[in-house]
Amino acid sequence: MSEFDRAVEVSAGHADETYVAELAAGWEIGGGINGGLMLAMLGNALGQALRGDRRLDPFAVSGYYLSPGVAGPAEVTVQVLRAGRSMSTASASLRQGSAERLRALATYGDLDAFVGEVRTSASRPDIPVPERCVTAEHAPPDMPRPPILDRLDLRLDPAHAGWVAGRPSGVGAMRGWLRMADGREPDPSLLLFAVDALPPVTFDLGLFGWAPTLELTVHIRARPAPGWLLVAAHTVNVAGGFFEEDAEVWDSAGRLVAQSRQLARVPRG
Amino acid sequence: MSEFDRAVEVSAGHADETYVAELAAGWEIGGGINGGLMLAMLGNALGQALRGDRRLDPFAVSGYYLSPGVAGPAEVTVQVLRAGRSMSTASASLRQGSAERLRALATYGDLDAFVGEVRTSASRPDIPVPERCVTAEHAPPDMPRPPILDRLDLRLDPAHAGWVAGRPSGVGAMRGWLRMADGREPDPSLLLFAVDALPPVTFDLGLFGWAPTLELTVHIRARPAPGWLLVAAHTVNVAGGFFEEDAEVWDSAGRLVAQSRQLARVPRG
Repeated sequence: MSEFDRAVEVSAGHADETYVAELAAGWEIGGGINGGLMLAMLGNALGQALRGDRRLDPFAVSGYYLSPGVAGPAEVTVQVLRAGRSMSTASASLRQGSAERLRALATYGDLDAFVGEVRTSASRPDIPVPERCVTAEHAPPDMPRPPILDRLDLRLDPAHAGWVAGRPSGVGAMRGWLRMADGREPDPSLLLFAVDALPPVTFDLGLFGWAPTLELTVHIRARPAPGWLLVAAHTVNVAGGFFEEDAEVWDSAGRLVAQSRQLARVPRG
Repeated sequence: MSEFDRAVEVSAGHADETYVAELAAGWEIGGGINGGLMLAMLGNALGQALRGDRRLDPFAVSGYYLSPGVAGPAEVTVQVLRAGRSMSTASASLRQGSAERLRALATYGDLDAFVGEVRTSASRPDIPVPERCVTAEHAPPDMPRPPILDRLDLRLDPAHAGWVAGRPSGVGAMRGWLRMADGREPDPSLLLFAVDALPPVTFDLGLFGWAPTLELTVHIRARPAPGWLLVAAHTVNVAGGFFEEDAEVWDSAGRLVAQSRQLARVPRG
């Protein structure tokens, strides 16, 4: 079993639609367990609760972050709101003891059941090949290295990685190639994590420090092909102490497979 | 009291955090009551439930649409998930009889309490003045005129209003000036409605018919100035029977006051 699948694993708990899980220290970043990883864990429980006799994929998942996740036991509860013929919607909650970490709403369905015309006017960003991108090895030795970096093979576009050397571009973008260090191939579940796996776009504005997410919504638009994912994020509105971060995930076949937006706090520096 | 305030009014119900309301026929569009209006009604209940002794505004609201709203009585229930010093998060549900219409998660706070630097790199679209835009009066007499149009003063950018005369631009955008027909000035509550008040961007692609929303998330980024709102929406990914629609709302002072994204079904034509 891959590191990612172990990290988001949930097992049937003491009651219907209740699952037990464990948040692992190896996925810490900034102020706690990575938010995309907790969303993927919730997504895993949602997929199990909604599945029935068909395979179900996330179409849309919206998570509201209530408190930082810490390494240790967790419990996930799912409440089905509407079980439809082609799509089902549910609410899910991730708790540790008495503290709720994350509440989400989500709609699930079978991505392969909706075969429609593809009219993507967005274009995949043109960034250098992975071999010419910036890795964690390029960071100064005194820069903190969160444990999550060991799980990832992340190659950042040099155009927005100047912050590694103290020269942020000022644009508010972050782009890079992403795959899992242990070779685990992408699927819809991994995309819930991938949208939030890059450093925050605020680094490219010279605003360093943890940027806690208030809300993160992910739309999964297609089942990804194996291989590298290209993740491209940017912000256009840093204001009033918050910023939005939009991310697109493109697969190795050049398809736009996920879109996300989050609202996060500007780091306090 | 304005038409909008009457339409989103909620009154204390039989239990704590329960509100009674009425969905009004004058806000119908396509397959039911306008989705943004139902979100604003939920928002109104959330604001009352979370208020305490301070004014609270929506920061982020995510609604999942479960069934179409119809004219008639409705009930809203709110569950507070986290009541914080500067921000509070809650879940809310809009029901009619035994049918749930809309479930939402939301974070509220005081927009005036977060005074931070404004670095908006998005630019306000440059569209013709309202007097040179397209109104409902320009539509062919045989085009259905949903009742909601009587509540709005909507002036569409001619560049993406060719569909009115059967010549969609093919870009997938929709932009226009918006104010309420009765002069009700914008505030954060009205912004929850404004993001979803334009015709769907799919019209500009020649895809006509109702485009039901699965999920709509709105971020309110500033208190809007009085006067016209400029709403600009577009899609970059029509695929697998769904499309995302991103909207920006700019106020008369030129500030980006709201950002939204929704996932909707492509009209079946």
